[in-house]
Amino acid sequence: MSKLPNITTSIFTVMSKMAAEYNAINLSQGFPNFPVDEKLTDIVAQLAKEDVHQYTPMAGFPPLLNKIASLVQKSYNRTIQPETEILITAGATQGIYSSIQALVGSGDEVIILDPSYDSYEPNVLLSGGIPVRIPLNDDYTPNWDLIEKGCNDNTKMIVITNPHNPTGKILSMTDIERLESILAKFPKIILLSDEVYEYITFEQKHLSIHTRPALRNRAIITASFGKSFHITGWKIGYVVAPEHLMKEIKKVHQFLVFSVNSISQAAISQYLDYVSVEEISPFYQQKRDYFQKLLSNSRFELMPCEGTYFQVVSYKAISDENDVDFCKRLIIEHGVAAIPISTFYENGKDLRLIRFCFAKDNATLEEAARRLCAI
Amino acid sequence: MSKLPNITTSIFTVMSKMAAEYNAINLSQGFPNFPVDEKLTDIVAQLAKEDVHQYTPMAGFPPLLNKIASLVQKSYNRTIQPETEILITAGATQGIYSSIQALVGSGDEVIILDPSYDSYEPNVLLSGGIPVRIPLNDDYTPNWDLIEKGCNDNTKMIVITNPHNPTGKILSMTDIERLESILAKFPKIILLSDEVYEYITFEQKHLSIHTRPALRNRAIITASFGKSFHITGWKIGYVVAPEHLMKEIKKVHQFLVFSVNSISQAAISQYLDYVSVEEISPFYQQKRDYFQKLLSNSRFELMPCEGTYFQVVSYKAISDENDVDFCKRLIIEHGVAAIPISTFYENGKDLRLIRFCFAKDNATLEEAARRLCAI
Ligand SMILES: CSCCC(=O)C(=O)O
Ligand SMILES: CSCCC(=O)C(=O)O
Repeated sequence: MSKLPNITTSIFTVMSKMAAEYNAINLSQGFPNFPVDEKLTDIVAQLAKEDVHQYTPMAGFPPLLNKIASLVQKSYNRTIQPETEILITAGATQGIYSSIQALVGSGDEVIILDPSYDSYEPNVLLSGGIPVRIPLNDDYTPNWDLIEKGCNDNTKMIVITNPHNPTGKILSMTDIERLESILAKFPKIILLSDEVYEYITFEQKHLSIHTRPALRNRAIITASFGKSFHITGWKIGYVVAPEHLMKEIKKVHQFLVFSVNSISQAAISQYLDYVSVEEISPFYQQKRDYFQKLLSNSRFELMPCEGTYFQVVSYKAISDENDVDFCKRLIIEHGVAAIPISTFYENGKDLRLIRFCFAKDNATLEEAARRLCAI
Repeated sequence: MSKLPNITTSIFTVMSKMAAEYNAINLSQGFPNFPVDEKLTDIVAQLAKEDVHQYTPMAGFPPLLNKIASLVQKSYNRTIQPETEILITAGATQGIYSSIQALVGSGDEVIILDPSYDSYEPNVLLSGGIPVRIPLNDDYTPNWDLIEKGCNDNTKMIVITNPHNPTGKILSMTDIERLESILAKFPKIILLSDEVYEYITFEQKHLSIHTRPALRNRAIITASFGKSFHITGWKIGYVVAPEHLMKEIKKVHQFLVFSVNSISQAAISQYLDYVSVEEISPFYQQKRDYFQKLLSNSRFELMPCEGTYFQVVSYKAISDENDVDFCKRLIIEHGVAAIPISTFYENGKDLRLIRFCFAKDNATLEEAARRLCAI
């Protein structure tokens, strides 16, 4: 008997594989296709010759822990202790998994918004917990009334994604305040705030849980160097949590992976002296604007995109197929791969929406748009 | 309430940290201190400039999967399917964790030998399973009679470590045959064979489960490039398992980490064309012999070391302190760090034994021995 009987191959694997098979432009799985900053690859090339090939300490390479503390200070004016409040993980995914595994036990309920990134629910199931899906409003804002109704004495954790994948929605100050007032009534609930797209936000500014004193002392916040520095393959992310939660997360981490890739940690640590995270949002905003302009003559209807490097579109004007079938046909007949939004819903709710990743060089976006506009 | 109430910081972290604090020679945690093969670091330096920075496929970088299949073919004359029977993991530790998490459920019993490497038991606990510790014989061979008695309808898995950490013991053909005859009686039990030191064996040859047709189709075998290629910090290992087990392990892996460090996978993949795994055992045998010779004039009694890069010694002639206290004093007063063997036992059984790692350059071994001989 499988512990995850309903889990099949993740949609990102399915679509990326199919894109490769049909030689389609891959706008499905979220990763950039442009070269990494030369400064960063120079650092790697030089570090290869240095003494960076053995285990780092379990919680992370100490200089990188310090740099992360400075980054959080600079970005959010929050002081965190490198030794006790930061854990460097094999991608944010492993940070999220370890946090849920450490803190959610048998019978604990975990509120997951619907739609949501696809790893949360299996993570909760593997920890013995019970996923409780709460639908977002039609405009993809959280439905706080439903969330509040969903909270009870068994609720152990609420997972939010901000900016939200796949919809690109950013929580407003009103949202955060509603969240604070709900959590004030349930002092035992832990907040897991997945902020891997924290540095990819556009007109509206990202309100990190790092900035909220009432929440951050009960919150686990996850971050991703892969997303922020265009190095998704490196699999280096981190978790920030108050010491009492971090102690438990580290127990899992130390017997799950022990430590994470040493060269990559050393390289990011040096790179943080050069890179400016403020440049990431304008860079992707230009990409978003360009991609939106390129698609403006297509029959796809563009949904708002407040953050992340994903553009959700409606294809209702083109077809009434379900979104999975439509995505497959898009690859086979039109040479462009996307992600069907239904796969982010608990019950596969299909609104005829698909998601494109615009973290691509302009030539790729242009050729993809050319193909999409021809439909 | 903690899910791992009895887990504290791992002994490897404790001892490495204390070694650093007291500026002691660190022969505790198992990692080399000599430079990595220049060929490998050249590959990394060159690859840094190539397109190796985005997600690899979930199960691993395809060229590396193929090279692993060739390596297993060459080392053990076993044909495995790269696509369905290999998973590249963030170190063997993550492979072991994911395997246990995928296959062991609530109430399942898992036989773990005593003493054993420290991650198995917490892994079983986090999966909801029940660790059943079976003591090794006094000569560190498995006690097959006790193991057979320990097997019942609830037994889901037996974990073996071969070569064994911390004792360096290698299973003999008699051991393997006993294991086969026991498992023949319990067709549902899965074997987890942790073979991370497969290429570090001395007089007696390693008998891999890869070579045993009756076992390998029900076995998960874990391997570590970190141990084999002196790059423990890279955290790249792999799992080999038959497809029906691998399918479940991949479900966990894809939502636990998704994929592992891309540069490292690409580098190892190229390096496997140059490196010869047959050179690893003679290299470490020389280290073992040299370290043993250096210690022959000490008051430490050397235990046999058949494989791994660990030398277990008895300090009975020196002190009657418990082994943890002795290790601490060894660091503080004598400037050498070791691992107390009691920490590998379920109940901290203390035989006045400690473990030294001899994966160190000769100057380090000489200076450590000088200090140890002065005691
Ligand atoms: C780990 S593969 C998925 C990448 C991603 O974040 C996405 O495409 O949403
Ligand atoms: C993951 S730290 C432990 C390294 C090791 O295998 C050992 O020292 O036994």
